[in-house]
Amino acid sequence: MTQRTVEHGNFSIERSFDAPASLVFQALTDVEMKRRWFAEGDGWVTERYVLDAREGGREEGTFRYQDGPPIRNETIYLDVVEDRRLVLSYCMFIAGKRISASLATVELSPEASGTRLIYTEQAAFLDGADTLKTRKEGCEQLFDTLGSELTRLAA
Amino acid sequence: MTQRTVEHGNFSIERSFDAPASLVFQALTDVEMKRRWFAEGDGWVTERYVLDAREGGREEGTFRYQDGPPIRNETIYLDVVEDRRLVLSYCMFIAGKRISASLATVELSPEASGTRLIYTEQAAFLDGADTLKTRKEGCEQLFDTLGSELTRLAA
Repeated sequence: MTQRTVEHGNFSIERSFDAPASLVFQALTDVEMKRRWFAEGDGWVTERYVLDAREGGREEGTFRYQDGPPIRNETIYLDVVEDRRLVLSYCMFIAGKRISASLATVELSPEASGTRLIYTEQAAFLDGADTLKTRKEGCEQLFDTLGSELTRLAA
Repeated sequence: MTQRTVEHGNFSIERSFDAPASLVFQALTDVEMKRRWFAEGDGWVTERYVLDAREGGREEGTFRYQDGPPIRNETIYLDVVEDRRLVLSYCMFIAGKRISASLATVELSPEASGTRLIYTEQAAFLDGADTLKTRKEGCEQLFDTLGSELTRLAA
């Protein structure tokens, strides 16, 4: 019988961006803007990327890193409060195998110099194919890339 | 501006049932069997209950307790391993207002006398309308009711 395991874990990431909450929210929810920081990067090929960040809407992407297997995300937007909050459920797949299911919350709040973002992920890692540490590092890189994109937009 | 808050929390519940995993799984995934322990109870009126516990399938229920407001759940089944595991995303609503979003995992494993169930919920409570304590108590009651139903089925 195949071994079936679940490892649960949570992490949060905080960032401050020198941009208004409306622009940060736009970068999180507009398909062309999000594609730039979320889906594209050196060595990555985006085979497919769609985003409908409304309640009940979906985001799906298929990516490959160099000659690696297809990596896919499937996201459902659950709660959307403009310029304030996103709550979404997403699964990750490698080569067609589901490796995790997560609940992710993005909270935006204005602060003196711009916007504070708090990202919280509550994850179930399935059958030993991913870890909390790797996931958190991947998300930290994504939010760094988002920060660079917001700086570029402000310039 | 409306106050927007998110409280994140996790809990687990463990139960041992004197029933084979296949029967426990059936009680979790068959619409008529689940309706008996999940949707019905003294003082509760079930206005609507549908369940399609396949990957990508949905569960939706609308309930009222006595003369209270409509309470609704909206569930999406993410990962389904027959007789072993369910991972689902669900939201709760009271009077049309979303009060929480959760990732829930049910793990079943055979043990000497039957089946061990571990339920893990990773929740985001929205805008102060529910608490971890209340949610956990509600789930404990549901799994007690499931236990009674399994005992009834075995008799």
